[in-house]
Amino acid sequence: MGKAQETRIRILEAAVRMASGNGFSGVSLAPLAADCDMSKSGLFAHFSSKEALQLAMLDFAAERFRETVVVPTLRSRRGLKRLITAFELSLDWAERAELPGGCLFYAAAAELDDQPGPVRDRLVELYQQWFESLGRIVNGAIEAGELAPRVNTAQFVADLWGILLMHRVAGRLLRDPAADRKARASFRRLLKNVRTEPSALRARLR
Amino acid sequence: MGKAQETRIRILEAAVRMASGNGFSGVSLAPLAADCDMSKSGLFAHFSSKEALQLAMLDFAAERFRETVVVPTLRSRRGLKRLITAFELSLDWAERAELPGGCLFYAAAAELDDQPGPVRDRLVELYQQWFESLGRIVNGAIEAGELAPRVNTAQFVADLWGILLMHRVAGRLLRDPAADRKARASFRRLLKNVRTEPSALRARLR
Repeated sequence: MGKAQETRIRILEAAVRMASGNGFSGVSLAPLAADCDMSKSGLFAHFSSKEALQLAMLDFAAERFRETVVVPTLRSRRGLKRLITAFELSLDWAERAELPGGCLFYAAAAELDDQPGPVRDRLVELYQQWFESLGRIVNGAIEAGELAPRVNTAQFVADLWGILLMHRVAGRLLRDPAADRKARASFRRLLKNVRTEPSALRARLR
Repeated sequence: MGKAQETRIRILEAAVRMASGNGFSGVSLAPLAADCDMSKSGLFAHFSSKEALQLAMLDFAAERFRETVVVPTLRSRRGLKRLITAFELSLDWAERAELPGGCLFYAAAAELDDQPGPVRDRLVELYQQWFESLGRIVNGAIEAGELAPRVNTAQFVADLWGILLMHRVAGRLLRDPAADRKARASFRRLLKNVRTEPSALRARLR
């Protein structure tokens, strides 16, 4: 990794840390430069605008998400196992990825929903890509005969993500010590409704 | 309503509108005063600090929530009917309350979860009060024999709120035209698992 790349990462880490205090939209170039002990023009050499910085922040968090959630999920066995892995790894991914301030996508979603432009577009694209991946993982579990064929994939993905959003509110805002337990109980209930009966699975395997 | 009260409301409306663009934490006194065509000292007469302003913003949104969701919910028949009303009225409450930028609590939750202090404390208190109300509504439906007695109230409330959080992401961020339909389908599934069988209800009523 070259010096410029190192500096870029150092700036992005500071920006994400700043976003955890000021909101995603509250990261501005001048205070960020001060925080990084850089001149504003030095920072500008890396990010020419607030928009360029915000796009880079999203991609920085997406890369962490890819390493922490996507890659290990796709390494686990296709089918129900992979779906459970996706859920478990999503639960506290930002903390495990050492992203200060928690999940940037969750924070950005609430702030950017009314802000048309390339940053919002990029955020939407990242969500859609991940929801499509989750859809393929659900379909994989259906094809493996572990989830019932009648499962509506998009609906299932929405329900799964709702559980994870509530886990954020319960864990990080309300500091509910039962947040993990509740999220897992919700996920088990969701799965229970759509699991194939063991007998049906055995019949299929015969 | 006196002149001071009118001015206060006008400032709060501008603040909430500003929050929808800049984030909850991005509302500052100087730009807000300019937006309201007031001097900064004029604004200070109403809100002596950013913290006082943020607390007033939360209470302003809470009052809108009370009028738009809580009061009509508690007016509907106790039992399952009231639970369904709470869900339906929560779906797009901020739009119906004409809060610019959507639900302030949703936006603030993501921003304030890492910000200790009185504003975060007030937000947590508002969430807890509403979740407790929802818990009483669920219990009312259990006592009416419309939900099974085995229902875990806190878990049910968490699941209900997860559906509403996902509805925000789907509707406002992803602009999914099926957001309402999906949220209602999730809620029906949630209810289906915990409804008492009509036969059990009839037996109880005999």
